Parts: sequence; C-alpha cells; structure tokens
Amino acid sequence: MRHLISTKNLSNQEVLDIFKDAKDFLDKKPRTLLEGKSITTIFFENSTRTLSSFESAARRLGARVLRLDVARSSSSKGETLYDTAANLDAMSPNAIIIRHSHSGAPQILSHHIHCPLINAGDGKHAHPTQALLDLFTIYEHFKGEIKGKKITIIGDIKSSRVANSNIDLLTRFGLEITLVAPPHFMPNSNLNYTYDIKKAIEKADIIMSLRTQVERHEKIVYASLKDYANDFCINSSLINDKKVILLHPGPVNRNIDISDEVMNDPRNLVLKQVEHGVAIRMAVLKKFILEN
Amino acid sequence: MRHLISTKNLSNQEVLDIFKDAKDFLDKKPRTLLEGKSITTIFFENSTRTLSSFESAARRLGARVLRLDVARSSSSKGETLYDTAANLDAMSPNAIIIRHSHSGAPQILSHHIHCPLINAGDGKHAHPTQALLDLFTIYEHFKGEIKGKKITIIGDIKSSRVANSNIDLLTRFGLEITLVAPPHFMPNSNLNYTYDIKKAIEKADIIMSLRTQVERHEKIVYASLKDYANDFCINSSLINDKKVILLHPGPVNRNIDISDEVMNDPRNLVLKQVEHGVAIRMAVLKKFILEN
Amino acid sequence: MRHLISTKNLSNQEVLDIFKDAKDFLDKKPRTLLEGKSITTIFFENSTRTLSSFESAARRLGARVLRLDVARSSSSKGETLYDTAANLDAMSPNAIIIRHSHSGAPQILSHHIHCPLINAGDGKHAHPTQALLDLFTIYEHFKGEIKGKKITIIGDIKSSRVANSNIDLLTRFGLEITLVAPPHFMPNSNLNYTYDIKKAIEKADIIMSLRTQVERHEKIVYASLKDYANDFCINSSLINDKKVILLHPGPVNRNIDISDEVMNDPRNLVLKQVEHGVAIRMAVLKKFILEN
Repeated sequence: MRHLISTKNLSNQEVLDIFKDAKDFLDKKPRTLLEGKSITTIFFENSTRTLSSFESAARRLGARVLRLDVARSSSSKGETLYDTAANLDAMSPNAIIIRHSHSGAPQILSHHIHCPLINAGDGKHAHPTQALLDLFTIYEHFKGEIKGKKITIIGDIKSSRVANSNIDLLTRFGLEITLVAPPHFMPNSNLNYTYDIKKAIEKADIIMSLRTQVERHEKIVYASLKDYANDFCINSSLINDKKVILLHPGPVNRNIDISDEVMNDPRNLVLKQVEHGVAIRMAVLKKFILEN
Repeated sequence: MRHLISTKNLSNQEVLDIFKDAKDFLDKKPRTLLEGKSITTIFFENSTRTLSSFESAARRLGARVLRLDVARSSSSKGETLYDTAANLDAMSPNAIIIRHSHSGAPQILSHHIHCPLINAGDGKHAHPTQALLDLFTIYEHFKGEIKGKKITIIGDIKSSRVANSNIDLLTRFGLEITLVAPPHFMPNSNLNYTYDIKKAIEKADIIMSLRTQVERHEKIVYASLKDYANDFCINSSLINDKKVILLHPGPVNRNIDISDEVMNDPRNLVLKQVEHGVAIRMAVLKKFILEN
Repeated sequence: MRHLISTKNLSNQEVLDIFKDAKDFLDKKPRTLLEGKSITTIFFENSTRTLSSFESAARRLGARVLRLDVARSSSSKGETLYDTAANLDAMSPNAIIIRHSHSGAPQILSHHIHCPLINAGDGKHAHPTQALLDLFTIYEHFKGEIKGKKITIIGDIKSSRVANSNIDLLTRFGLEITLVAPPHFMPNSNLNYTYDIKKAIEKADIIMSLRTQVERHEKIVYASLKDYANDFCINSSLINDKKVILLHPGPVNRNIDISDEVMNDPRNLVLKQVEHGVAIRMAVLKKFILEN
C-alpha cells in the first residue's frame, strides 16, 4: 500500500505523470473514475481551502466524501489518534485525507490503515500536494522549461511545511532556490540565502511568498509583524516592471505577505494556484486510489 | 452572468416561470438536471433551515454540494471576504449560495466571481428565495388568483430582510399590504400601516408574521418581548373563525410570534412553506445554473 | 410507518433477515439500492463513530445524506425539538437518523414525522443498531450457534443504552447473561449478577465491556476512575489463555475499560464490530426505507 506522506514518496517521473493527468483535469468536466469509491477527510487543524480543494477534487471524480468533524469526535472523549484511525479504517474507506498539527502524525498512522493515506499537511513537516500544485503552476507557466529557473522563497521558511515540501521538489527538478527571511524565520540548510530581499528578487524568475504563520509563533512575533511587513512584504516597488511570477499558498495576509496592489497584479498567480490545486488533487487521488 | 441578489433581479414573468417549475418539483421525485454540477454553500450566519433547504434542493436535482464550514475557515485567520470568495471561485463551482450578516455583501462579491451567486439572506437587506416561496405558497393556495388579496405583515418589519423582499414581490403582483408593528419595529415606507393589530387582521386574506429578530436588537428589547407578545402574538382570539391563511418564515418564537394553539391550526401554512421552499430553490437553481 | 426506536421493534425473524443482508453487504461493494433517496442525520449529542458509520452505510447504498449541524441550528435560537423535526419532515427526507441525549426523544418525534426514524442512541434508553451489530458479531463468530452462549457484561451498565438494547436482544436469542459492575453501576434487574469479575469471566464465551460514561456521572465518579480500573479493567491476567471473545461499543477508555495489551489481542473484536456496524446499518436502512 502506497501513501502520500511527503513529496519524497514520488519519483520525478511520477510527478510528471501527475502533471499530465492534472492538465487533462483542468477542463473541469465531471468524471466517473472514482465512482463508488468512498473518501474520508479528517482535518485536525482548521482549514477551508485545502479541505474544500480535496473534497471538490474527490467529487469531480465521482467519489463520495465523508467529512469527519473532529471537533465533535471521540478525540474529545479522550480517544487516541491511533484508535480514531483504526476505527475509520474499519469502515473501509478507499482513501483517508488527513491534516494534523503534529509533524509525523500521518506517517505513524499510515502503518495502521489499509487504504492510501494522503497527507494534507502535518505540523512543520510536509504538505506534498501544495508543493505539487506550486511546481505544476510553474511548469505550466514556463511550458515545461523549468530547469535552471531561479526561485526566491520569502517568509517564515523555518516553520513552513509548504517550504519543506517545495524545497525537496524544486531542487529535484533543477530549480535554483534562494531563501529570504529575517534570521528567526531562516532554517539551517545548504541552500543559498540572503537577508536582502531586493537583491534576491533582482534575478528571480519566480517569487514564492509564504504565509506568516502567526499562529505558530510566540506573541512577541505578532508585535513585530509590522516590522516584518516593512522589510519582507511583496509590494510594487520591489517587483516594479520585472518579468517574474508570484506564488503564495494562501491565505494571504494582505499587506504583510503581499501588498493590496500586488494582489491585483497579473503576475500574481495565487488564484491560478487554487485552480491548479483541484486538478493536482484529482490526479493524486486517481493515482493513489486506482494504481495502489 | 446573472445572480440572484434580490427579488428585483427577476421579472414577473420569470417569477411565474419559477412557480411553474416549482409546481412540477413538488412531486419530490429525484432528478438529474444538475448531475455533474458542483454547488458550494457558504453561510456566514447560523442557519439550519435555509441551508438544508438549499442543500436538499441541490441534491434532489442531482448536484453535488460542498458545504464550507465558515467557523473553521480562513476568515478566522484574517482573510478578507473578497479573498475567500476569489478562492472559492477559483475552484470553479457551478453556483455559490451565500448567507451573510452584512447587507450588501453578496452584491459586492457577485462582481468578483464567475458563477451565479444566490443570496440566501444578507443582513437586513434581502432574502429573495424566502419571498419567492412565500408568494408561491399564497399563489398555490389561491390557485393563482392573488391580485387584490389583502396581506397584513406583522412584527419586526424594520430589521427584516424577509419583509423587504416580500414587500417588493407582493406589491409587484398586486397584493395590498398593511404593516403592523410597534413603532420601533416600523420602517419608513409609503405602505399602509397601523398599530392596531385587530383592525389590520379584520380585512386580511393573509397574515404574515415575522420572526422577532431578538438577536439583532439591543438588550432592552429582550426585556420587552413579553409586552410585544401581549400586543402582537397571533393567537386564537385574534383570528377566531376568520377565513385567512397564516405565514411565517420560521423558526417561530412560540407564544411570542404565534401562540401554541395557532401553531396547530390548519390555517397555519408554516410547514407548507418549508415544503414549498425546497421546490422553489430547486427551480431557482435550475434557472440560474442552466439558463445563465 | 415503522420506526426503529428500540430492538423491541423487530421480531427475531426480522433480526435474522437483517443479519442475512448485512452478511451480503460485508463485501463492501457500492450499491444503488437507495439511489435517489435522501437521508437526514441529526445528532444532538457528539459522535463521530456512529454518525460516520450511518453516513457510510447510506452512501454505500447510493443514498444522499444531509447532515444537520445542530450546534448551529435553530435549536440555539430557542426552537422546540418538535418544530425542528416538523421542519425537517416538511423537506420530505426518506429517513431521519437521530441521536439525542434525552431518553424517549426519538419515540416522541416519531409520532410527528412521515418517514422512518432510526434511533442512533437516546439518553440511557436504547441504541438498537449497536445491539444488532454486537449480536451480529457474536453470530458471525459462532457461525450462528449462539443459543446458550454465556456473555458477561461489564461496566457502567445502569447508564448504558448499549446494555439495555443488548440485554433485550441477547435474551431473546437465548444467550445467558451475567452482569458485572460496582454497585453504583449495577441496575435493578432479574438477570444474574456478581461483583466478582474473575468468577464472571471464568465461564464466559463472550465478554462485553462497556464504555465508562464518565460524562454522564457526577464529578465524584471521575475521582474513582482509577479504582474502577483496578477492579474492572479487562487485562491480560483476567483473560490469560481463555477461549473467549471481547466486545466493546467504543470509543474505548484505554486502561480503564480495556488494557493496552488486550486492545492488541486477537480475541478483541472491537474493530470487527466497527466493520460490521456499517453492514448492519446498511441492512437496517434498506429494510426501513424500502419495506416500509
């Protein structure tokens, strides 16, 4: 049984195969590939965007979705995560899509269930479908010519599962990554990095702004959000007339991550990412349910 | 792209066409008219009744429904309403059904999305499908002979989007409206009004009692609910053996809006309204999704 | 119109017919028996397990499910349970599945609705589908030879709707019941009982451990949970190498109801019960919707 815990679970060829399917699925036609299949979503962390993207994807393939309402679940009766999963599994879903605030929770659970488990984000660890849709958006924009493209990742990189999964995938596909962040947001890594956002953007083909995960930091970071925005918010003067595209996993903190003006800029592909997200998740569900 | 923000978006002929479809749909048979279509519901205000009416309608036509759980959504992460809508839109639903506590929110959003938007109630502004189902209930009861019928609207009219939408629609179809309410619940309008409920009911063919929107008023109104009920609750002695029908959008505050006794009276069409509501919403979804 | 409020609503032959259907449904293939049917779930008490079991069952038969979110419903606007039910009913579902914290609530409601009502647990009264799936698990394990089998029921029997429904059903099928519990958890009944768990387990073919319903007791019981566990937790030394099967309705309080070690024991059929639960609920929905 194969699970999608991290981008590392997929070979480069498999990623390209997923992109091929996703491209087909961009026609938005309803399909019956997963008719009769049951997919359970269980999100232990609040989310509308990713949850509805997965559920839209599942339904567009004809699957039935059972949404587990965790706030009301037996977890609040003291049940262990393992018991919750074992019980879900005993109802024989064809796939379980899970989000959890603890890094590694999906990995542990995957050993105890009998259907593919798709990680929809775990703690600071991984968010594989987000990285897939980000790379797919870049791949589509540059018509497949992505090797050697320069990407600048900006923001709270250290706490970001989106950055982790992207760094793995972008590196494997030959993109050149530069990290930009204030020191307390910068991870230890072998990658190029700088504290100078202007310099970093100068040569970039792609800017990936991350969400400032204010909810994962101490209160003191809140107080300095304005200072952060002064230094790292993507605004018009930073990108002026550069030929560049801008990505962000959403939801965007307006005027902290990206300025209002740049939100309306045609180089901003944030909504394209959302559209691509449904198609990528359709391709992932198809692969992990039908080819497993 | 046409949206249903208010009853003013529909011509009288279109209203009658909706009634014709709704009458067919009263057979309650499942249909496949919207098979393969995806409908998103996003309710920023609590509701079971209207939400489940819309979702039942969508499913009875074969559509798939994605319910957005707003309490858990990115709104709580500080996302703007516009960004939430743009993101939903990027997932390419075939219609969005929205309820919002701010008057005008659906109107603003409708400019930014690429599918029909159906207003399921916005602040004190409009609730078009409620007015349609109310008029449909009257229309069915009087077998289409509704011109000149006298309707008395009672209650918290000033804060009521139900009253607003009904006043537009009832007037256009030639019904004669009289408003009855205590002064602080009475809107400024050109309509007939009185503070004397007995006199108002005397000549009425139809009584429309509104829900006392206790949650939209200051605490001082709570204190006087009992006084309100003394004066304006529809009870047996008010309607004794009159030939009249009684409507209410629900949920009814028993013994404040309507007495227990009158709740069981055959002239009370509250449950008929609920039944008609599903059929009307089926007709509305059919029209706005298939004819747009 | 027939409703499933308690196991007493079913003859022994009907129970066996349900088991026959459930056995077929264990193949987990999707079916179209309830295509075009609408099922409403309304749970006034928190639950993931039973709710998702019913919803999985409904979907696996091709029905559409409308989940009522009671926390957000008009109940919080002060609507009576009767009005909520009458309104649901007016939307013409093909079945209503209800859980309620008040014993008897489903019985009262069943008089006012026009579709089969399935009780998914009411207060301390009844939980018929749980008892059906428990007996089905025993029936499958012993290949139908259940008459005369000895079952020991352990735990908070007095407050347990699961115990109530099981005691009715197990007795009717000729099993010999012994109750084991501390005095404050022991009901008044004509059944064999003992306070000595070792003696009770000695002769048992089946052990049914119940969930300690800590949420239904006063705080003082919490304080003695550890004492309870010392005396009544099912652990390895109690069952050592006995030939016995262990049931529990879940969620299990680990090391209070059942020890970690026994949770992993092959004689523990807790997950089998969950699997059987979906099949039993499919059979129940088929019977009450199609044969009514």
